[in-house]
This record gives sequence, structure tokens and C-alpha cells, in this order.
Amino acid sequence: MRFELQAECPQTGARAGLIHTAHGIIETPVFMPVGTQATVKGLSPRDLADDLDAKIILANTYHLFLRPGHESIQRLGGLHQFMNWPRAILTDSGGFQVFSLSDLRKITSQGVLFRSHLDGDAHLFTPESTVDVQLALGSDIMMVLDECLAYPASHEAANQAMRRTLEWAQAGYQHYRCRLEQTGSTAALFPIVQGSMFPDLRKACATELLELDAPGYAIGGLSVGEPRTLSLEMTEVTTPLLPKNRPRYVMGVGMPEELPEYVARGVDMMDCVLPSRNARNGCLFTSTGRVIIKQARYRDDSAPLDANCACYTCRTFSRAYLRHLFQASEILFSTLATLHNLKYYLDMMRQIRQSILLGRFPAYLDGLRRAALE
Amino acid sequence: MRFELQAECPQTGARAGLIHTAHGIIETPVFMPVGTQATVKGLSPRDLADDLDAKIILANTYHLFLRPGHESIQRLGGLHQFMNWPRAILTDSGGFQVFSLSDLRKITSQGVLFRSHLDGDAHLFTPESTVDVQLALGSDIMMVLDECLAYPASHEAANQAMRRTLEWAQAGYQHYRCRLEQTGSTAALFPIVQGSMFPDLRKACATELLELDAPGYAIGGLSVGEPRTLSLEMTEVTTPLLPKNRPRYVMGVGMPEELPEYVARGVDMMDCVLPSRNARNGCLFTSTGRVIIKQARYRDDSAPLDANCACYTCRTFSRAYLRHLFQASEILFSTLATLHNLKYYLDMMRQIRQSILLGRFPAYLDGLRRAALE
Repeated sequence: MRFELQAECPQTGARAGLIHTAHGIIETPVFMPVGTQATVKGLSPRDLADDLDAKIILANTYHLFLRPGHESIQRLGGLHQFMNWPRAILTDSGGFQVFSLSDLRKITSQGVLFRSHLDGDAHLFTPESTVDVQLALGSDIMMVLDECLAYPASHEAANQAMRRTLEWAQAGYQHYRCRLEQTGSTAALFPIVQGSMFPDLRKACATELLELDAPGYAIGGLSVGEPRTLSLEMTEVTTPLLPKNRPRYVMGVGMPEELPEYVARGVDMMDCVLPSRNARNGCLFTSTGRVIIKQARYRDDSAPLDANCACYTCRTFSRAYLRHLFQASEILFSTLATLHNLKYYLDMMRQIRQSILLGRFPAYLDGLRRAALE
Repeated sequence: MRFELQAECPQTGARAGLIHTAHGIIETPVFMPVGTQATVKGLSPRDLADDLDAKIILANTYHLFLRPGHESIQRLGGLHQFMNWPRAILTDSGGFQVFSLSDLRKITSQGVLFRSHLDGDAHLFTPESTVDVQLALGSDIMMVLDECLAYPASHEAANQAMRRTLEWAQAGYQHYRCRLEQTGSTAALFPIVQGSMFPDLRKACATELLELDAPGYAIGGLSVGEPRTLSLEMTEVTTPLLPKNRPRYVMGVGMPEELPEYVARGVDMMDCVLPSRNARNGCLFTSTGRVIIKQARYRDDSAPLDANCACYTCRTFSRAYLRHLFQASEILFSTLATLHNLKYYLDMMRQIRQSILLGRFPAYLDGLRRAALE
């Protein structure tokens, strides 16, 4: 994996670049659709490629480890072949899901012991084992195991979790380097900056992680219940410490209006379940604001969902039809709504990238901020 | 609507033909995918057109009358525009659903009073009103209101229901002819032969319905719990009485192996929720037999679902991946499974049609019957 920085905004920290992977080139800044269980809920790989032109998607190690199992996926040729997705895949380490989904977590210096949310079976994730699981999946960009705290956390607890995250990153990296030599894999491994909402801890963590000379760095532990200004602030104190020539990935953000704010703070990669989950719940993002499709006002609305959107959903169906599908709990609603919301996110990122390349990002950002205030 | 008979099998009653409608030409024999609530569950119109090349689909008057309402659909340009399906649509009269889904049915000579299964509201369907509802939907082929009995029924009850069906057909037809003149609609209206499992009643009903000189005839009241030999027998006593130059539609059948049997008895059109409902439940039809995808034997099965099938699902994914999607309750499973099962049905009908046109239907049928016995 190689990152090519193409342009930097002189006024903000915004960057445009290319991530070269064994499964294609990713234009950054990029939003990565979430395909938790080896499928972006409601979409087929051809929807993702042909309609959305997504270059990279995310899959969750925790879920795939539990079902169908990484060894099963490896026997079937790896995750790309399993889900028939020829483009890039990023997998998380499973740490976040262990902390948010599983029961009976027990953290030791070795790793984290947990019970599956599916059948209650006990499992252990270590910094080494999650690398092995991700190598078995065959992902292009892997994440180190980290300890992610809920918000709020005390400085002491945050420091302890950050220190553990650092130790795990070192252990994970050592194992990763051995395994790369053994396997000839080209997978990248990103360490994760933690430190809760404490700038000193974030800075200390970032600084120490630099020693790993990683091909990219993630900022984790955000979107865990804190006010949004804090998430942005933590990003802002971290990115200046990270190497310019490596991509930066803020995990689990965000709302559409937040995407350009993260980019303005030097972030290259983002992911979030929000566009797809909201879609299934009938909350749709459009160029003229949010549409809650179940509202009676859309019952006879023959207009497209978003007249400025070129997605299949907006080209083909009325708001009235979408509302009918939602009210009738039809499967097609999830597909059409997810297609649109992800298109909205990906189009926004393409516009942001374009504006950076053309040197117009500050004006673009200004326009968005003003529109948000109206 | 015009039916063009292209070929008849000299040994069996099988026919190949073309139904010319305002929304395209339908090659018969044809299987019509069921799009109950103005969507074939899990599929988009482009899946139906591009992947399946379906020429006609069915929609349920009962469901659309209740939600979103036929007047709403009419205001939005009719059902074709509402669901963005430019090809032909057949709607049932709503009678069958009233008898199978709604509460508190009360039948009078006027029509049938029922309570919505959605909100308990009382509604009345009359032979005239269901024609009006279907005209508002803008379907290409409409059905008359009929009384459909459960199995078994006494000869007396069956006779009474058949007589009521005849009266309703006459009333519906009279109303339809007036409305055609008023509206300039080109919709066809098919009467329905009833008579439960009594050949004398089936014959009497068919003979009397001939007087309507309808553009097509349906055989209803089958697949209501009777043994399959009886359904075929009732078809066999009815089709010889129907005019040769009009299409014959057996409602609500059947299993894949039954399709050629109905064709052999002179049937041109069929519909059934079975391929799509079974798909969603993980029961898949293949050229080598049924696949119950949840079975552990498919866990590591890298083969396509059906090596002889050219559908997107079989071209793209392994049985192991499909099993994973099913086990994980992923939406994509419903889409991929429905696509395959409907492709299986439509391909079978295309093969049947081809064999009739080439004069090889008896050999084709013989091969299928032998394979079924193995």
C-alpha cells in the first residue's frame, strides 16, 4: 500500500491523494461504506461498483470471525472472492465491536476475553490473533487491536487504555512484520490513536505510534457519545502530529455536514454506518435537507427524492413510491434508500476532493458552513 | 389485448402464443412473478427487466386498494408509472385475498364486505368496484370478482359460489363495457372459472362464461389445499371448453415440476408466490434438485448454486456465501435468492415454449416426468 499526496489546501489541512492497493486505487478523501457481515446491507457488489463506484468498503472482523469464521473465508479464497468484491477492503480489528456488542469482556495485558453476542461462546482477541484473523480474511488495510472507552472516561482510565493500546500496537506490529515475511502478504496495518477526550493523551499516543513507521494511521475512540465539537477537537490536535505522507483515517464518523469538517482537519478516510442504517430507518439525506420518508406529506409526492441526485433511486422513483415501500416494509425500500444515502455521501466526498484539487476547498467549506446555519 | 396462437402440440394440449398488450408483447406459456404491493419482493424493476426479462408481472388489487390506495396510485400516473414498470401488469380482483387475509367477511349478492387486515376498517368489494379499482391502477389484464372456496367444499356450497361467481362476472362485465366506452381504456377483463373440485360445476361455469366473449379466461379456486392431482384434473376438464384463440390463465400455481403439466393441459399463463417466498425462506430450485441453503453441507461449498443457471446469483456467488447471507439474515440474501428462483421458473417456461414451437414438447415433458420419478 502506498499513499500519494496530490494536493494540500494552503488555508485548511485538507488533502487530496491516492491510495494504491493491490485491489485498485482509492481517491481520497474517501468515505468507505460499511459491509459488516461481508455485505453492505441491501446492496449487491454490482450496486456498489456500478451505481456508487465505491473503491473501498469496510468489513467487521468481529462479525466475520464469529460467522462464518475467518478460516472458512480463507478456505473459500479470502474475503474478496467470498463476497465477490474485487476492489479494496479495510477491516477493523474487532476491538470496537468487542467493547460495544459482546458480553463479559475481560481485558488483560494479553488481550480481551469476550463472549459472542450470537451464542455466548468465549473467545480471546490478542494483538497477534486479530492480525492473523485479518490476514486470513485477506483485507487490504488492517487495524491493530485497541481499547476503546465509552464517553466520558476519567483521565486515569483514558491513560491506562491508551497505554494498553500502545502496547498492543507494538505487539501487533511485531507479529505483523513476521507474518508478512512468512506469507508475502501486501496488507497494510494501521495503528489507532486513542486517548479519549484528552489532548495530552491523544498527542502522547500519536507521538509514540510514529515509531512504528506505519503506512497509515487511524484515530479511534470518537463517536462514542461525546459532543461533536469534541470529536473534531480531538482530530484537530492529532492530525498535525501524524506524517504528511501517510493517510489518516477517522473511524466511525459522521453526519454529512461533518465530513468536510474532518477533511478540513487533514483527514483522508472515514466510515460510518449512519448513511446505510438511517436509510433503512427511512431517514434520507438530500441536497435540500433530510427527508423522513414516512411523513404523510410525501404520500402523493411525485417528485424524485433528490432532484440533484443521479442515483438509480432518484432517476427512477417518486417520493410517494418510496414512502409506500417503507410503509409496506418492503425489502426494496432498504435497497433503494441505502443506494441513495451512500451515493449522497460518496458524491459529497468526490465534490470535496475536486474542490481541493482545484484549490477551492475553503470557499466550498464556507458555503457548506453558511448553508448549515440557515 | 390480442392473443396470437403460434403453435399447438398435436399430442398434448400445449400451446405457444403471443399476447399483445399496450405494454408490450408477452410470449406464452408465461410465468408471471408476483409483485403483491407494487414490488416483487426484493427485486427492482431493472432486476426484473434486465436480469429476468420478465414481460409481465402480477400485482394484488386487495393490497394496493388498502395501501397506498388505488386513487393515490391513479393520481401518480397509474401503477406502471408508480412502480416504474413499463411492461405489462396483471391485477387480480382482490377476491382471493379477501377470502384468505381479511377478517369478518360477509358475502351478499351485491359483493363482499370485509375488514382490512391492516387496520380493521370495513370495505365493500362489488363486481363493479373491483373493475373500477383495477381501471384506476391501469393494469393491462384485470380479473372479475369471484368467490373462491377453501378445500374441501360440498357440492352445494361449490354450486352456490360458482353461481355467484357467474352473476358477478356478468355484472362486472356489464360495468366494464360501460367504463371502456367512457374512458377509452384498453384493459382486458378475464372472468374466472370456479366450481371447486366438481367437474360438472367447472364445465357449467366455463360454458356459461363463454357468453361473455372475454379476451381471456382464468381458472381459479385451485391451490387451496387440494391434492395436486385434483388441481390438474380440474384444469383438464375446463380447458377443452375454453375458446382456442383466447389465453387461459391458471391462478396461483405451482411447483416447478407442475408448470409443464399445466402447459400440457392447454394453459398459457400461471403465477405463484412460491418461487419468491421459498427463495426468502432459503429453499432454492436448481437443475439438480432443491437446495435448502441453511444446511451445514453448504458451509464450505465454493460451487455456484446452480452450475446450469446464468443468473447474476449463480454467475457471481458461491453456495457458501449464500448460506452465510441467509444465516446472517442479510437483505442481500432475499434479493439474490429471489432472482435465482424466478430465473429458474422463467427459464423453464422459455424452454417449454421453445419445445412447443419446435414440435418437441411431448419428448420434453416425457424427460421431465422420468426425471421426477428417479
